[in-house]
Amino acid sequence: MTILPLPEIPFDGAISQFYENEAPKAVRKAVENASKRDILSDSYPYDRWMEKNAYQDELKALQVELVKLQHWLAASGNRMVLVFEGRDTAGKGGAIRRLTEPLNPRIARVEALPKPTDRQQTQWYFQRYIERLPAAGEMVIFDRSWYNRGVVEHVFGFCTPAQRELFFRQVRQFETMLAQDGIRLVKFWLNIGQAEQLRRMLARERDVLKQWKLSSIDVGGLSKWDAYSNAIHETLTRSHHDDAPWTVIRAEDKYRTRLAVIRHVLGDIPYPGRPDKLPRGVDTAICGGPALWQND
Amino acid sequence: MTILPLPEIPFDGAISQFYENEAPKAVRKAVENASKRDILSDSYPYDRWMEKNAYQDELKALQVELVKLQHWLAASGNRMVLVFEGRDTAGKGGAIRRLTEPLNPRIARVEALPKPTDRQQTQWYFQRYIERLPAAGEMVIFDRSWYNRGVVEHVFGFCTPAQRELFFRQVRQFETMLAQDGIRLVKFWLNIGQAEQLRRMLARERDVLKQWKLSSIDVGGLSKWDAYSNAIHETLTRSHHDDAPWTVIRAEDKYRTRLAVIRHVLGDIPYPGRPDKLPRGVDTAICGGPALWQND
Amino acid sequence: MTILPLPEIPFDGAISQFYENEAPKAVRKAVENASKRDILSDSYPYDRWMEKNAYQDELKALQVELVKLQHWLAASGNRMVLVFEGRDTAGKGGAIRRLTEPLNPRIARVEALPKPTDRQQTQWYFQRYIERLPAAGEMVIFDRSWYNRGVVEHVFGFCTPAQRELFFRQVRQFETMLAQDGIRLVKFWLNIGQAEQLRRMLARERDVLKQWKLSSIDVGGLSKWDAYSNAIHETLTRSHHDDAPWTVIRAEDKYRTRLAVIRHVLGDIPYPGRPDKLPRGVDTAICGGPALWQND
Amino acid sequence: MTILPLPEIPFDGAISQFYENEAPKAVRKAVENASKRDILSDSYPYDRWMEKNAYQDELKALQVELVKLQHWLAASGNRMVLVFEGRDTAGKGGAIRRLTEPLNPRIARVEALPKPTDRQQTQWYFQRYIERLPAAGEMVIFDRSWYNRGVVEHVFGFCTPAQRELFFRQVRQFETMLAQDGIRLVKFWLNIGQAEQLRRMLARERDVLKQWKLSSIDVGGLSKWDAYSNAIHETLTRSHHDDAPWTVIRAEDKYRTRLAVIRHVLGDIPYPGRPDKLPRGVDTAICGGPALWQND
Ligand SMILES: Nc1ncnc2c1ncn2[C@@H]1O[C@H](COP(=O)(O)OP(=O)(O)O)[C@@H](O)[C@H]1O
Ligand SMILES: Nc1ncnc2c1ncn2[C@@H]1O[C@H](COP(=O)(O)OP(=O)(O)O)[C@@H](O)[C@H]1O
Ligand SMILES: Nc1ncnc2c1ncn2[C@@H]1O[C@H](COP(=O)(O)OP(=O)(O)O)[C@@H](O)[C@H]1O
Ligand SMILES: Nc1ncnc2c1ncn2[C@@H]1O[C@H](COP(=O)(O)O)[C@@H](O)[C@H]1O
Repeated sequence: MTILPLPEIPFDGAISQFYENEAPKAVRKAVENASKRDILSDSYPYDRWMEKNAYQDELKALQVELVKLQHWLAASGNRMVLVFEGRDTAGKGGAIRRLTEPLNPRIARVEALPKPTDRQQTQWYFQRYIERLPAAGEMVIFDRSWYNRGVVEHVFGFCTPAQRELFFRQVRQFETMLAQDGIRLVKFWLNIGQAEQLRRMLARERDVLKQWKLSSIDVGGLSKWDAYSNAIHETLTRSHHDDAPWTVIRAEDKYRTRLAVIRHVLGDIPYPGRPDKLPRGVDTAICGGPALWQND
Repeated sequence: MTILPLPEIPFDGAISQFYENEAPKAVRKAVENASKRDILSDSYPYDRWMEKNAYQDELKALQVELVKLQHWLAASGNRMVLVFEGRDTAGKGGAIRRLTEPLNPRIARVEALPKPTDRQQTQWYFQRYIERLPAAGEMVIFDRSWYNRGVVEHVFGFCTPAQRELFFRQVRQFETMLAQDGIRLVKFWLNIGQAEQLRRMLARERDVLKQWKLSSIDVGGLSKWDAYSNAIHETLTRSHHDDAPWTVIRAEDKYRTRLAVIRHVLGDIPYPGRPDKLPRGVDTAICGGPALWQND
Repeated sequence: MTILPLPEIPFDGAISQFYENEAPKAVRKAVENASKRDILSDSYPYDRWMEKNAYQDELKALQVELVKLQHWLAASGNRMVLVFEGRDTAGKGGAIRRLTEPLNPRIARVEALPKPTDRQQTQWYFQRYIERLPAAGEMVIFDRSWYNRGVVEHVFGFCTPAQRELFFRQVRQFETMLAQDGIRLVKFWLNIGQAEQLRRMLARERDVLKQWKLSSIDVGGLSKWDAYSNAIHETLTRSHHDDAPWTVIRAEDKYRTRLAVIRHVLGDIPYPGRPDKLPRGVDTAICGGPALWQND
Repeated sequence: MTILPLPEIPFDGAISQFYENEAPKAVRKAVENASKRDILSDSYPYDRWMEKNAYQDELKALQVELVKLQHWLAASGNRMVLVFEGRDTAGKGGAIRRLTEPLNPRIARVEALPKPTDRQQTQWYFQRYIERLPAAGEMVIFDRSWYNRGVVEHVFGFCTPAQRELFFRQVRQFETMLAQDGIRLVKFWLNIGQAEQLRRMLARERDVLKQWKLSSIDVGGLSKWDAYSNAIHETLTRSHHDDAPWTVIRAEDKYRTRLAVIRHVLGDIPYPGRPDKLPRGVDTAICGGPALWQND
């Protein structure tokens, strides 16, 4: 009988080993000294996590707006595509969960494509993503997306430089075509620092219930921080355009990240029942264009 | 442009109306008088919800076992099918969430099929379910299943009596074939009483964030309690067999339900690392065969 | 870039080599001595091919009936499944072509499944066939079918003996379920002798335009005539049942075979416009039950 | 039970009626006076069909080259897309059949998409075509294609003018992306005159075995000759570009058409075994760019 390869976890403590033996000193220090609710990045505009009660209240208020947005989507036949990108543990999954929680899964669908099959590898790169695009009244949320070619595939050598160049040559045009077709395209880049990433990976390693979220890519990526940084910077720069601009969210604080994401999804869509002012405005200190992106 | 029909919610208070004007007096009374953590069913072996901390501890311990079970699945190539049935609000979704939380979604997959298309209506009834069956190393969790034909399709007249009879004639054979093929088939029936169901529906109606879980089927079902009861009883009786027995869980208390479900999924599977004794044994007062099913 | 394996043809004359060095003497003689329109099998009730003009006239008349049958299918919503089995070169493809020629390909669909993927290998054996079953108004024609497990998979060791036993344990039940569901199931076994098969394979080998029809399975099968014979005989015997009987057609003469197939598909279906008598009745000398099957 | 709509044929003689009552006099005359092998179009460079034996010899020789091309495709992992367009009865199906006859259907696949479903109508127009694009080593042959939007959808009002403009805005870019990705894209427009079309439609109407090829679109299109001509002319002009030029074939003579198609598919591809000169060169009198297109 053909069987699945053994799942790769728990990696025999590869993350603690990196932490102890390889991580830059400053990073190790930051992780070591932090108490639970501290923010590790110096350049982040806040020192501590948002207060939990305030978060919950605001989340609820924003989710109520999402429900109205969903009505509008379904009633008007509009289509939305959300793209979530960011390093491992940046909080894509958590943000997507809060976003979809109050929504009908038949209307708001999450697509997290597995690595391409051998056959897919030989097809036009965008093909398997295009197959998942929304029909009228649908919102499709890509948990990782075609931008894999810009970053992870490049860093790990899963694509050739020529394939990546072709990707950059085509991606804007591709997105422009979707925009011309009337699809609202929102692209998020969740941005975390090295210390925060390491802290979160250590937490996953230690918690057997979260270990399934760790992959060999995550482990292998630990020692490729700079290669990632370069690839991300290039990708943000080369694929930011009017028809599909990037929204960078500094994601050191999961609470503020999730609120910023939802607020940005609501954007300025004129759905019925929209209040004059959304609960608090956009926090431009952590949510903005590619210029906001930090490599720390 | 073809657009989706407007979502049906919020039903203009149809549930409160049923509660106030049509619900049996005893049911209304039970709902009215209960304080938050009270169990409403008289025949349930406990008066109050399980204590939250104890629940969380036990859940965690059981989820750790699920992670080991998953390793075994993937390594051995075994296949599992879980079927979750029960009236609306019985807690299928919540139980499934706790079960899948610590598992890799590529290994443990949830299938909640939409209502059949016109074309599917004319195909062999089991076809669209069979398309979702597991390959080696996979666990497929059906949130509602082919048993729709036994209950909801019957109660709402979505199938003819002849189609239902044919279903009963074939379902055991169908399941036996899967068992012969080596698929482990676990069928859960989550059983709640009328008062508890009404309490939960009222809660959904009031909470805009949960309204998407309500459908016109749910609302229409309120006044069909007895038709449901008869259909369920018949279904449990006619489709309980050695190759695929029913496990009825009295689901008045969500916490106890979720623990019972996970414990039963672990069953007596000899996965590596299994402790001699699972955290507490099976609670036979709320988890057993069709005889346990109550209509109150 | 991942590329397809080189197509296996033209096998470097493997078939002529078998013919010259390994084929039983009698078989070689028969091939050698025959002139073009001679029938090679001694036990066949005719000596020569049917006359071409008569064939063409009759084919046309029968195809007109197929058009009426198709109207009836579409108008009544009936479903049909045709299964075509038989050794390589037995004429499955040619018969299917004449059958579908006058039909709308959206109504009469041919399914020739490729060899199962690794993933499919671990699923329930019938699953991938069930996915192709007809909806209302459709006729699905399987060019090879689930009976692969009875014969070719067995002969080439692509399945274990236990898998094959399970297949035989389930296949009748499976077909009965389809019949109960109202699907008309017609199973053809096209039966040719070893000399005729060799003659046809040699012709394919020689004609570069037909070489794509040859596979390594065909070549490998040449020296497994007896293993095939045993597997076929067992399969015919164990899977002939009232809900889905086998129709064996002695297929030495392609013309007579095609006419017999169409006549049998028309069967006794009461489609509008059916003449009292079909053009010539069924030729029971070459079309009947499993008893007709010859191993020569 | 949901059943298929009755097939629309045989249209109660709608075509003969058009022929007798509505067709332009000149067209009717041309049809009336022609003997079987006459070419009806005055501007066609030949008066009579090609001689059958010469056609068959040449076809065979070209098909042998196709077999070599197929080896090269599979071995090199190249990908090809062929697009066949042209009015109804222009001979798309017949040309495709001669092209695919000697090829392995797993390598050379024909895609004739049905009219879009309601859901597909609301998706990005190119999506359902993109889903069918080739993987390495494959040739995909579109029998009608995305160019439906340029012609038939426009003529019958199945799309809005805005949708059509968007199509023209995107189609070149779309094709260029495929070309950049290394897919060889060959686009054929089979061009026939009104008299020839009518002659062929009358033949289909009369032959019950060919009636399935007639659709209500064909019948409805009879009186829209000029609207078609304008739409075709515009489409050819606006979508002819270096990355994916149109090849117009004057298709009055089916034999010459098929030979020209195959010759052009072989193009200048350097497959192993290619002779210095293909059997006869390209016939530029009937095969060329958009300028060759005639409206007569
Ligand atoms: N061999 C590969 N080729 C291309 N992409 C790959 C390959 N291996 C992994 N990936 C992609 O890299 C991304 C990151 O992988 P991983 O960290 O395992 O996933 P996730 O972040 O979803 O947990 C995924 O989108 C995965 O599909
Ligand atoms: N017309 C129908 N025919 C058959 N099944 C239906 C039909 N309408 C709804 N159902 C099924 O009834 C079940 C209950 O419906 P609903 O309460 O809307 O779903 P859920 O319990 O998942 O919220 C679902 O499995 C749904 O697919
Ligand atoms: N309602 C429609 N919307 C869009 N396209 C349609 C519609 N109806 C037919 N078509 C398309 O028009 C083309 C011509 O139709 P038809 O003549 O019926 O097909 P064919 O030429 O394949 O016999 C087909 O590609 C078909 O899919
Ligand atoms: N490895 C395999 N496992 C199962 N079936 C196979 C395998 N290889 C070929 N077959 C089947 O054997 C039949 C004959 O093969 P072919 O002659 O190659 O068409 C086809 O139905 C194939 O799908």
